[in-house]
Amino acid sequence: MDILQTAAQALAAIRKSKPLIHHLTNYVTINDCANITLAIGASPVMANDPQEVEEMVSHAAALVINIGTLDATKVQSMIAAGKQANTLGIPVIFDPVGVGATSFRRQAAGQILQAVQPTVIRGNMSEIKTLAGFEAVTRGVDSAVDTADGDQAAQTVAKKLNCIVTITGKMDLIVSNQGLYRIDNGHPLLANVTGTGCMATSLIACFCGVTTDYLASAVGGIAVMGIAGEIAERSLKPDEGIGTFRVRLFDAVSNMTPELLLRHGRVNQG
Amino acid sequence: MDILQTAAQALAAIRKSKPLIHHLTNYVTINDCANITLAIGASPVMANDPQEVEEMVSHAAALVINIGTLDATKVQSMIAAGKQANTLGIPVIFDPVGVGATSFRRQAAGQILQAVQPTVIRGNMSEIKTLAGFEAVTRGVDSAVDTADGDQAAQTVAKKLNCIVTITGKMDLIVSNQGLYRIDNGHPLLANVTGTGCMATSLIACFCGVTTDYLASAVGGIAVMGIAGEIAERSLKPDEGIGTFRVRLFDAVSNMTPELLLRHGRVNQG
Amino acid sequence: MDILQTAAQALAAIRKSKPLIHHLTNYVTINDCANITLAIGASPVMANDPQEVEEMVSHAAALVINIGTLDATKVQSMIAAGKQANTLGIPVIFDPVGVGATSFRRQAAGQILQAVQPTVIRGNMSEIKTLAGFEAVTRGVDSAVDTADGDQAAQTVAKKLNCIVTITGKMDLIVSNQGLYRIDNGHPLLANVTGTGCMATSLIACFCGVTTDYLASAVGGIAVMGIAGEIAERSLKPDEGIGTFRVRLFDAVSNMTPELLLRHGRVNQG
Repeated sequence: MDILQTAAQALAAIRKSKPLIHHLTNYVTINDCANITLAIGASPVMANDPQEVEEMVSHAAALVINIGTLDATKVQSMIAAGKQANTLGIPVIFDPVGVGATSFRRQAAGQILQAVQPTVIRGNMSEIKTLAGFEAVTRGVDSAVDTADGDQAAQTVAKKLNCIVTITGKMDLIVSNQGLYRIDNGHPLLANVTGTGCMATSLIACFCGVTTDYLASAVGGIAVMGIAGEIAERSLKPDEGIGTFRVRLFDAVSNMTPELLLRHGRVNQG
Repeated sequence: MDILQTAAQALAAIRKSKPLIHHLTNYVTINDCANITLAIGASPVMANDPQEVEEMVSHAAALVINIGTLDATKVQSMIAAGKQANTLGIPVIFDPVGVGATSFRRQAAGQILQAVQPTVIRGNMSEIKTLAGFEAVTRGVDSAVDTADGDQAAQTVAKKLNCIVTITGKMDLIVSNQGLYRIDNGHPLLANVTGTGCMATSLIACFCGVTTDYLASAVGGIAVMGIAGEIAERSLKPDEGIGTFRVRLFDAVSNMTPELLLRHGRVNQG
Repeated sequence: MDILQTAAQALAAIRKSKPLIHHLTNYVTINDCANITLAIGASPVMANDPQEVEEMVSHAAALVINIGTLDATKVQSMIAAGKQANTLGIPVIFDPVGVGATSFRRQAAGQILQAVQPTVIRGNMSEIKTLAGFEAVTRGVDSAVDTADGDQAAQTVAKKLNCIVTITGKMDLIVSNQGLYRIDNGHPLLANVTGTGCMATSLIACFCGVTTDYLASAVGGIAVMGIAGEIAERSLKPDEGIGTFRVRLFDAVSNMTPELLLRHGRVNQG
């Protein structure tokens, strides 16, 4: 069975079992992440306080750690929740939002990745290059090296952190020790709406919540977002813009079926 | 005059007097709560800091306390604001989001309910059952008992806390010492959008801001949300999904009139 | 070249150079501010933590300081970011949300304005009157005096703080030491959606990110929001309400062109 078929089966499983996805995420797109999780058929819960994250994650099928609008308390919660998820075998999906922008974020990302084993990391090219440039995760304060090649950056991070790494952009890239996939779905308008990256991360987590084939989960989450972007864009009339596009994105994810995923997904290995 | 007529008159009063509704609420749906408050014709204000909540609530016609994305500082603010609201005779609408999920939330809910007299509590079945299972509000850390019956759980909480209790779900239930009402409005899609529960809580608060008939206020807020869900769902075309449904919910609340509420509300006593 | 032409050129420059706009803003409308910044063609970044705001603002073309949902830590971050912006010559756009509502907000606004030189302040009539009533910025705890006239309040603040002051409302007012402009765009429905004021502030910041003509920037940001409100309202069908209006606002900003701004902007001097 090819990887897209595995993802399509997982999509059916999400709609059936409604996995609980615990998010430790930013305040900009927290509502979008909750709604996209509901749209794909899963169940979101958001909880940040250090006093409750370990208990909350124990109920969850997957944990999202997203470092936008970070603060020191949240870093502590992310580490506690992530370690607990590791202990319980719950997959951890890490989104290094803006990790290259400040030394605070680089240090925080370094601390989190030193303490927590991520299952999948999803970022844009710049973010993954920043992680690739960390000389050692324990230091985590080096700025991005000039990695000319996204493939190489993703492979460096995947090897160093022993996890799946995805770079979303014009062409999406998914790398693991078992192989490399490219997804040729999506539309440039996705970059004009805040949170489409964060939402892709949440979608990956929804897939990880129903299967241990995490590579297929990354493919599924990224492909669903990309296909939804294509459907949303095609639906736009002349006077419509990013407001309507954003609404239709949620429509398209809520109407996504295994059949649509198989028909429209453009996934290539190698 | 029956309870729906009282609610319809209150809706007219909301649009006329634009009551200020102070929210201490979660970060996931805070924007939705502000917009639904505006849609019904009231005026939202969100303020969390312990240094300002007592002064802010003194300007308000009603106070919403919603415990999603809770932290220790916010618990302190909720208690301060709630006590001040009690002192000033301002109704307090309490939403125990996810109260059963962690001991931190159960303890926090217990502390708040020990210090603050709620006017109306709105939750889902699981949340109200958790509150019903509190052996004593002062302890507040017991997990949900197996209360087979929603009616019984709501009545237990209503009696113990001397307030109105509503359970929203397939059939909405509103219980007070003066009686029990069921509302048969709504649509299952409401569960597929984040914040529809929080928004129902905000709508109840808007009604409580213009009348001391808090039972009619609970009926009005719940019925408006349910009817809006029905209107939003009926408007959907085949390719539309939860993104459009969510937009139409706000449309339907902003276009709600006393006449529509009377015509479409399905409220039964007992 | 008149001021609207300057603003139209700046709009073209925003779409070309995609200036980074750092926001220290409230949790109610943070997603709206990010999306409106993207809609006009700029790039938003939200970061609050005291440990990273100085570094983050150094990457930015403009800084927004918006005091909704304030807390003590955020005041500290706002002062640090604002001082750094002043040092680096980065324009600071200040939005005194609800400044008159509590003494905490008045004190915080006073502290921020004592430490940070704003480039543009945008508020509603009540907020600007509150700032006008500050006997001295160093005290900042006096409540609003009864300034009968918005023009006078804006001029008082503009002179006292040596910055541009805009009051948005039925008729928008923009005041600087170089003159006074009135903008007769907009629609009353804008007041029925949360965040339209915050979004206008973000739009002003986007313009300030590409030109040092900050008066034209204020005119441009306010006019774009007002014209978008008109376009959004005209597009509404009978059953549509504030949900659809809000979506169309983003559509209209994302479709705004220099030509549309010139054709529909109603800007008058004096």
